[in-house]
Amino acid sequence: MSNIVTLPLACSKLLREKARCKLSFAQIASHIGHDEVWTAALFYGRATPTLKDIHQLADLLNLSAESLEDDFRMAGPPTREVDVSGKTDPVVYPFQEAIALYAPAIRTVIAEKLGDGAVCSAAMKVRVEKVSRAKGNDVRLVLESKHTPFQSW
Amino acid sequence: MSNIVTLPLACSKLLREKARCKLSFAQIASHIGHDEVWTAALFYGRATPTLKDIHQLADLLNLSAESLEDDFRMAGPPTREVDVSGKTDPVVYPFQEAIALYAPAIRTVIAEKLGDGAVCSAAMKVRVEKVSRAKGNDVRLVLESKHTPFQSW
Amino acid sequence: MSNIVTLPLACSKLLREKARCKLSFAQIASHIGHDEVWTAALFYGRATPTLKDIHQLADLLNLSAESLEDDFRMAGPPTREVDVSGKTDPVVYPFQEAIALYAPAIRTVIAEKLGDGAVCSAAMKVRVEKVSRAKGNDVRLVLESKHTPFQSW
Amino acid sequence: MSNIVTLPLACSKLLREKARCKLSFAQIASHIGHDEVWTAALFYGRATPTLKDIHQLADLLNLSAESLEDDFRMAGPPTREVDVSGKTDPVVYPFQEAIALYAPAIRTVIAEKLGDGAVCSAAMKVRVEKVSRAKGNDVRLVLESKHTPFQSW
Amino acid sequence: MSNIVTLPLACSKLLREKARCKLSFAQIASHIGHDEVWTAALFYGRATPTLKDIHQLADLLNLSAESLEDDFRMAGPPTREVDVSGKTDPVVYPFQEAIALYAPAIRTVIAEKLGDGAVCSAAMKVRVEKVSRAKGNDVRLVLESKHTPFQSW
Amino acid sequence: MSNIVTLPLACSKLLREKARCKLSFAQIASHIGHDEVWTAALFYGRATPTLKDIHQLADLLNLSAESLEDDFRMAGPPTREVDVSGKTDPVVYPFQEAIALYAPAIRTVIAEKLGDGAVCSAAMKVRVEKVSRAKGNDVRLVLESKHTPFQSW
Amino acid sequence: MSNIVTLPLACSKLLREKARCKLSFAQIASHIGHDEVWTAALFYGRATPTLKDIHQLADLLNLSAESLEDDFRMAGPPTREVDVSGKTDPVVYPFQEAIALYAPAIRTVIAEKLGDGAVCSAAMKVRVEKVSRAKGNDVRLVLESKHTPFQSW
Amino acid sequence: MSNIVTLPLACSKLLREKARCKLSFAQIASHIGHDEVWTAALFYGRATPTLKDIHQLADLLNLSAESLEDDFRMAGPPTREVDVSGKTDPVVYPFQEAIALYAPAIRTVIAEKLGDGAVCSAAMKVRVEKVSRAKGNDVRLVLESKHTPFQSW
Amino acid sequence: MSNIVTLPLACSKLLREKARCKLSFAQIASHIGHDEVWTAALFYGRATPTLKDIHQLADLLNLSAESLEDDFRMAGPPTREVDVSGKTDPVVYPFQEAIALYAPAIRTVIAEKLGDGAVCSAAMKVRVEKVSRAKGNDVRLVLESKHTPFQSW
Amino acid sequence: MSNIVTLPLACSKLLREKARCKLSFAQIASHIGHDEVWTAALFYGRATPTLKDIHQLADLLNLSAESLEDDFRMAGPPTREVDVSGKTDPVVYPFQEAIALYAPAIRTVIAEKLGDGAVCSAAMKVRVEKVSRAKGNDVRLVLESKHTPFQSW
Repeated sequence: MSNIVTLPLACSKLLREKARCKLSFAQIASHIGHDEVWTAALFYGRATPTLKDIHQLADLLNLSAESLEDDFRMAGPPTREVDVSGKTDPVVYPFQEAIALYAPAIRTVIAEKLGDGAVCSAAMKVRVEKVSRAKGNDVRLVLESKHTPFQSW
Repeated sequence: MSNIVTLPLACSKLLREKARCKLSFAQIASHIGHDEVWTAALFYGRATPTLKDIHQLADLLNLSAESLEDDFRMAGPPTREVDVSGKTDPVVYPFQEAIALYAPAIRTVIAEKLGDGAVCSAAMKVRVEKVSRAKGNDVRLVLESKHTPFQSW
Repeated sequence: MSNIVTLPLACSKLLREKARCKLSFAQIASHIGHDEVWTAALFYGRATPTLKDIHQLADLLNLSAESLEDDFRMAGPPTREVDVSGKTDPVVYPFQEAIALYAPAIRTVIAEKLGDGAVCSAAMKVRVEKVSRAKGNDVRLVLESKHTPFQSW
Repeated sequence: MSNIVTLPLACSKLLREKARCKLSFAQIASHIGHDEVWTAALFYGRATPTLKDIHQLADLLNLSAESLEDDFRMAGPPTREVDVSGKTDPVVYPFQEAIALYAPAIRTVIAEKLGDGAVCSAAMKVRVEKVSRAKGNDVRLVLESKHTPFQSW
Repeated sequence: MSNIVTLPLACSKLLREKARCKLSFAQIASHIGHDEVWTAALFYGRATPTLKDIHQLADLLNLSAESLEDDFRMAGPPTREVDVSGKTDPVVYPFQEAIALYAPAIRTVIAEKLGDGAVCSAAMKVRVEKVSRAKGNDVRLVLESKHTPFQSW
Repeated sequence: MSNIVTLPLACSKLLREKARCKLSFAQIASHIGHDEVWTAALFYGRATPTLKDIHQLADLLNLSAESLEDDFRMAGPPTREVDVSGKTDPVVYPFQEAIALYAPAIRTVIAEKLGDGAVCSAAMKVRVEKVSRAKGNDVRLVLESKHTPFQSW
Repeated sequence: MSNIVTLPLACSKLLREKARCKLSFAQIASHIGHDEVWTAALFYGRATPTLKDIHQLADLLNLSAESLEDDFRMAGPPTREVDVSGKTDPVVYPFQEAIALYAPAIRTVIAEKLGDGAVCSAAMKVRVEKVSRAKGNDVRLVLESKHTPFQSW
Repeated sequence: MSNIVTLPLACSKLLREKARCKLSFAQIASHIGHDEVWTAALFYGRATPTLKDIHQLADLLNLSAESLEDDFRMAGPPTREVDVSGKTDPVVYPFQEAIALYAPAIRTVIAEKLGDGAVCSAAMKVRVEKVSRAKGNDVRLVLESKHTPFQSW
Repeated sequence: MSNIVTLPLACSKLLREKARCKLSFAQIASHIGHDEVWTAALFYGRATPTLKDIHQLADLLNLSAESLEDDFRMAGPPTREVDVSGKTDPVVYPFQEAIALYAPAIRTVIAEKLGDGAVCSAAMKVRVEKVSRAKGNDVRLVLESKHTPFQSW
Repeated sequence: MSNIVTLPLACSKLLREKARCKLSFAQIASHIGHDEVWTAALFYGRATPTLKDIHQLADLLNLSAESLEDDFRMAGPPTREVDVSGKTDPVVYPFQEAIALYAPAIRTVIAEKLGDGAVCSAAMKVRVEKVSRAKGNDVRLVLESKHTPFQSW
């Protein structure tokens, strides 16, 4: 919760009420009919809610729908600038490291399966799954997006 | 195929014969009983084959199993140093960008689902899937690994 | 022509014959029915030709179509990794500098005109135009691509 | 609207009133007789207004022309330092990536069309256009500036 | 104590009381039944206490166990992002320098002793020992963790 | 063995003969009476052998002691410049990451145990140990060096 | 002369003959009717000669004008990418350091003298002068270029 | 005026009064008998005034000479650390770019004219001149300093 | 005095009183029986005083010895992390530049005079001397520390 | 001797003959009447010899004076670009680290002793001394150069 500070007002409000209501993202996500990661992304200022999303959240977290709506309008579209570099951490970094390690393999397999194209940022969906194994748990990260063939002109 | 140059001899041999035999990684992977991405990773010097893998590859690609075995022994264990930064490309980068964009969401959702822990590099499995949609294709990248709780001492 | 060295064989062949035949990219582009920038991108290893493109180029530049085809197959799909940073030059850099300078303006105007979305790498078309003015020439760079709305999930 | 904070006072005033009046840059631009991107650049502190621009803006946004004039004089000429590097985002970055990807092609085509010269920063004009296509929208970014031949001395 | 500022409230409370009570980490560690380095890591926001740890610390440092518990819950799981680079210092840097200097030796000796695998971040234990020698003291840093063999898939 | 290329001649000779004789560093180290890591460091050009070390190595690996001596004299003292940054790998990096993560804890515990001082680079000893546990193996890295109190002047 | 290696053939020829003929840039510059710095820039691959320049150089340095012409055509337009950073040296760096040190002063004085505009890269002329003083020599670096007012659009 | 914030008190006072009195640096410089760039550098905290300079400034700008003197004493000698890298801007950067572009030429011409030596930072004088041309204005930047021959020892 | 802000309280107190008492470091150093550079380092938070040092300073600068002692205890051991890079300045940088320029010479001469070893950080003493010459002053920087031979193990 | 490769021919000749003659820099320096560090700097391409220096070296090392003279003329003035950053090593780095650590102290003490000025690169002399102490050796690095007061203009 330490990164509330630099978030838009709408987001810090949501995170504070989530903490107060002791709700998990799984619970909130099922209430508003979205995936957990997307719901968390919304709370961290990386996604755009519809009016319906805002009203359902206001309802669940005892916030004024109207002022939450205002807060989101003031915040404008999410800033999606990222800097893929530098810091490592033991939860998210291993996935990025694996993609970097297997990059030539991934690139070639995608080219063989889908042709010479690009992967779309806007259509990317990210899902986290817990997989229970005999000797502890696995975590599965599923990333899926549109593949567009390169065009000549 | 432009990056053959800096690969160990064993790998450039494999890549050259794959090209000559016009085999896809899907075909090779099914022959040696592994996933396509792992198979491609082996060809790009990022994975360690068993003796059985080497013999099946030699068989499929008309190579001397003995000398291929020697080449792999000379190459030693794969160098797995990666540098997650700098360059962007339109196939692999969008996945890294999505992980960076949704990092706080992913980290929190994993913490809520599996507790305070770390994701294991060595057990990471990477799979590429083609998903046919009404308006073109999606590409799905599935990353799965062991999750280990942090320990005090 | 100094950067031929690190290009795939197919590309350095094309560049060498272009120089020998004293043809401009405008002339070559009109022969193969593509835009000049795309044609130049093909010669610099940043685009994928069709079989028809290869045959027309071989024809124009007195090359063996068959061996040119082989060279392109060996080169595989173009490596499109780029590093947007560091060096400045007086022809290309001013365009990147202008995009960086006006980035908040461009981002907001696009959001107002087309909504919250992403711009597609694979569908990007780049065109250079010469505009004759009373006091010398202007150069116009036109970039156009697909705009995809962000999706929740 | 999150980047108001580091802008000069004149700019944050303008952005606040624009939000309050629910005006788009298209509406404001047509009122002051400039292009949308230039108008947005002015609001984001990257351009210099004339006295007439200031008075028309004050008029449209119900601000005191006199104090807006004072605010712009205090702010002085725009700081135009940019850092073309590091962060990626899904709206502006694809254009920079395309310029970097096609840089050798763009440089050579410009040299062939206009000779050995440089592109002028000060005269650069940037325009955003929405192009409606059968399957959704395209976004077109047009950059145009003066081309000056290199001189010996 | 200069880095209290950016620590979560729970940590700055602990560090302040430690200073007030003039207790060393050795004394605190022996009270709560953990190693000194782990105990110090907890005070610097890099480890997660159990409820029992919190109560023992509150007890030893005359803090309200309840509000300390609240503070830790608000702080959430520790942020473990690190940036292994840049700055040098005369206490910690020589260990990192030695690991970098002897990296190829360490990597090969580990491969020869334990096979082709990875070292686990989450299970890493760090211990500092003072070794008295005839001509002054040695400091010994012991790092131990789980080694996991690489898996094909 | 891929990094032989940039090593001094003496080192590549040693590494080649080690491979030919199928000896592990454990076997070589026990022959010359040194630790495995130091022995591997010598083979990778990071340590200085005595004349006795050279003669024992020449003896074990069937090399001419005289020419090995010449090769080491020509190579001069090892270059010990290191760059602690950038690349991550799954064997050595987790140790550096742990030192960075626990740096404030390590620094303070060392200060409490040994006072305000510095750790000596030249006296650093590095040891790798395999620890067999019920559920697989642990790897232990032990770093030990002289601690020198800071002096005023 | 150590940087001949990476220069185009035309340039290394010129530099070699200049050394053989023991001519200074002052002598060559006066022969071809250009400034010394521009002449040196031509020899270091940073400027474009006219046909007349090439013939005068060939004449002075006993080279075949025809083959020198060919060499320059093969080299194409100069690569003018620069990287203003990193290395310091005691001759050129002090000028860059002074510009950086006095940057806010220079920027404001230019704005006060010439208005809000940009300085043109292509028209930049650079001159070195030796100024004899009572106590040794001064070196004067004169940079002059076109100043273009910023334009709205 | 936006960079007043990080300047010493003495400097922000001077800049504020300059704005209030609507004086240009040319006017102030002629009043205190210095060059414009040096005067501006003084206002931006990059130069050291004499007592006489301080008194003349206080007189011109209606400040208390005594307290201005105190402010300068508190500020101490100017911090002259610079970082020649990173950001580009369209007024100062083209000069740095030209020096970088022509660096080998400048270095060699200086060596031919003045011998093997270094340029002095402390004695560097920087002057800006406006040169009116038929088709608009040129800006001339003149840098001059002492040249000291390298000495053996 | 501009860098007081980020210093521990004890240091900013000392620097403020030094300014108020108009004492030079030479005067303070002679009072407390240390070298000037060490004394200045203490004031800038880079050295550890003894109790006797603290009392002598409190005495000289009219501070409460007791509260100064408390301030130093709260500040803990000095943070000695440094970042040898980036910025240049005309007083300290020329010494670092000279060490970098002559590094291979210095390294070899030390190896020839003292053998294969390392230089100790903790024992480093730094002294500044003014040397009056016929034509102005020289500044001499003397660095001296313990040299420890590399050890095998 | 590993860095001979990138040195000018004159330097690699000198270093090779020094090794063949088994002479130390101390011996060579005393033969040519210079300091050891300057002599080593000359061998590593960082200094300019006089004709007399060249003849004395040729004489001592059994080289042809004439061809050594030619080699030095071809090499031209030494490239003195340095990059003070990045890599650490245990012999030279501790001196740079100490200068960085004590930079504010050194800067202020120099300002108090010699006034507001700059240190001259060209006049820098570097000396290495071995100091025998009761418990081993110290190494002393002495750097001395001209100090020039900053000038207004």
